[in-house]
Amino acid sequence: MRFAKPLAPGSTIGILGGGQLGRMLALAAGQLGLKCHIFAPEEDSPAFQVSAAHMVADYHDFAALKEFARSVDVVTYEFENVPGDTAAFLEKLSVLAPSSAALKTAQDRVDEKTFIAGLGIPVARFAAVNGEADLEDAIARIGRPSVLKTRRFGYDGKGQSEIEEKTSAAAAWAEIGKAPAILEGFISFNKEISVIAARGWDGAIAVYDVPENQHENHILRTSTVPASISRATAEEARDMARTIIGALDYVGVMGIEMFVSGTKLIVNEIAPRVHNSGHWTQDACAVSQFEQHIRAISGWSLGSTARHSNVVMHNILGYESDNWADYASRSGAGVHFYGKIEARRGRKMGHINVLTPRQG
Amino acid sequence: MRFAKPLAPGSTIGILGGGQLGRMLALAAGQLGLKCHIFAPEEDSPAFQVSAAHMVADYHDFAALKEFARSVDVVTYEFENVPGDTAAFLEKLSVLAPSSAALKTAQDRVDEKTFIAGLGIPVARFAAVNGEADLEDAIARIGRPSVLKTRRFGYDGKGQSEIEEKTSAAAAWAEIGKAPAILEGFISFNKEISVIAARGWDGAIAVYDVPENQHENHILRTSTVPASISRATAEEARDMARTIIGALDYVGVMGIEMFVSGTKLIVNEIAPRVHNSGHWTQDACAVSQFEQHIRAISGWSLGSTARHSNVVMHNILGYESDNWADYASRSGAGVHFYGKIEARRGRKMGHINVLTPRQG
Repeated sequence: MRFAKPLAPGSTIGILGGGQLGRMLALAAGQLGLKCHIFAPEEDSPAFQVSAAHMVADYHDFAALKEFARSVDVVTYEFENVPGDTAAFLEKLSVLAPSSAALKTAQDRVDEKTFIAGLGIPVARFAAVNGEADLEDAIARIGRPSVLKTRRFGYDGKGQSEIEEKTSAAAAWAEIGKAPAILEGFISFNKEISVIAARGWDGAIAVYDVPENQHENHILRTSTVPASISRATAEEARDMARTIIGALDYVGVMGIEMFVSGTKLIVNEIAPRVHNSGHWTQDACAVSQFEQHIRAISGWSLGSTARHSNVVMHNILGYESDNWADYASRSGAGVHFYGKIEARRGRKMGHINVLTPRQG
Repeated sequence: MRFAKPLAPGSTIGILGGGQLGRMLALAAGQLGLKCHIFAPEEDSPAFQVSAAHMVADYHDFAALKEFARSVDVVTYEFENVPGDTAAFLEKLSVLAPSSAALKTAQDRVDEKTFIAGLGIPVARFAAVNGEADLEDAIARIGRPSVLKTRRFGYDGKGQSEIEEKTSAAAAWAEIGKAPAILEGFISFNKEISVIAARGWDGAIAVYDVPENQHENHILRTSTVPASISRATAEEARDMARTIIGALDYVGVMGIEMFVSGTKLIVNEIAPRVHNSGHWTQDACAVSQFEQHIRAISGWSLGSTARHSNVVMHNILGYESDNWADYASRSGAGVHFYGKIEARRGRKMGHINVLTPRQG
């Protein structure tokens, strides 16, 4: 289903998921005069606090989903693990963006890598793994070190097992729970970067400047813009993003993670949603990734991705949020807290965007 | 009542008034991880859509006010016409910022001008007017042209009558409804400017750059930053703001309107709240006036008022909002719609902040 015309202010955006990404989408929608209705299984979801309406129900409660779909003008989601049947159901009743087809590709690491490689864009060597014997074959072909990952539902390093010199196939297969998997060749990289791209219903594409990302225990720690890469490499990364988002016939914002290995770019994975490595856009650009996503799915013209400042985004993780007053007092920093009640180790509680004047 | 310590994320801000200023305060609070509870008499108030809770009741419903006060950690307001007894009542039950004393001074044009003049800051010549005879005397003293205004409850040019060459005192007195009034001498000015200032519980003061304002039919049309005034005049204006906000022992954001007459500054009026002429801070500064107000009343350190871009704020009035898609497609503009259902002539429906690179 598509729009006859863009959604006017006063329309309602439906969002699956009530975490910090849903919350920041709702705040951006609020700025544009749009209402939000959040659908999430958890009571006290952070996004509820800033939205006109919410519904607490399971993603497989189809009666609730039906009621939800009928109360909104478009449906989107803040996380990539939306069940496929849920997405397909909503897509029949309402407008879903990004589409269930784009979601399906992004949800499965084998489909994702097959799709990207098919566009002529470099990815790690990979093989589908459906059992221990498959894994033995794959290791023989791809070599060690390599990484075994579940095809679906992985995030922040969960569902992964490293295949080192002496790791047995049996142990690795057991570690990831014997779920359908992918073996990926190890990439020796210098830097991790990402591209935040958006595409509208009309096919228009907007791409932000490239952040350089640092992870700690598989969780994003900082994003720095501009990345310390050449202009040519940055442009190549942005072009790859344009190719991917266009080929998927995608509507909304997408995050595309890449490795920089020497002068070569290798796409790691795509996230069919606003992305942690795009949070810096809130304070360094006229239009943030959150507003951009709302604009895209609502049929509005995409906003400018121009960046007025240099910026470093720092995630505030777990009990670091106890120091909220220190973060809040940093001069020239945009401060964002997510309204989460309980801090847990590694949990994303907020972030700050530290701005400095743009150099060229 | 004051705070022992700043309000942590997760605390609740109570806001009297559910219009666009309350809405933008709530969006700013949401960014900081704070919840909002809106108290307003009108169903479907724009601020309800982006807040965790709301209550629809009259400002004189003291039972409702009591329940409201007990559910929040601090109370503030988005408009200066909060009844005095309502403010005093809330101040006994909770923390009120700005205080009822500051509100009282700002609500009455005679008290306001007396207070400001007492600080050695120029204001228009003025006289209190309590009847037709008073008005005759005041006109004889202050001269024509001059302006008769109600002491209280005037905004956007309402409650005003111009005293021209042949206006009779009786007619003017009747026109403003024979309410307690002030006669103000006419000021021949070159420009209108304003200063947006903030003060915290600890006495810290932060002042933004000075916008130049253009009005149409007494309603703000544009604010342009920087104003086309000398650096010395801008600094003098900011100093006056510091003097006023400090002398009032004020907590929160205040808007101070001034005339520039040659090289002389004359304070026109103060608004004890976030101000339309400060909306440009949302897109041109790391910390907006709305976030600044929330920071101030919550006991947080004030944010930086540094401006990274030049900017022109344009109000979107009445049926201009029918052209929302045109406004939304302006490149490099921050777009803000207020979620109001019905457009009426002159009604503030939204605004855009058009950014250009900062020159010096």
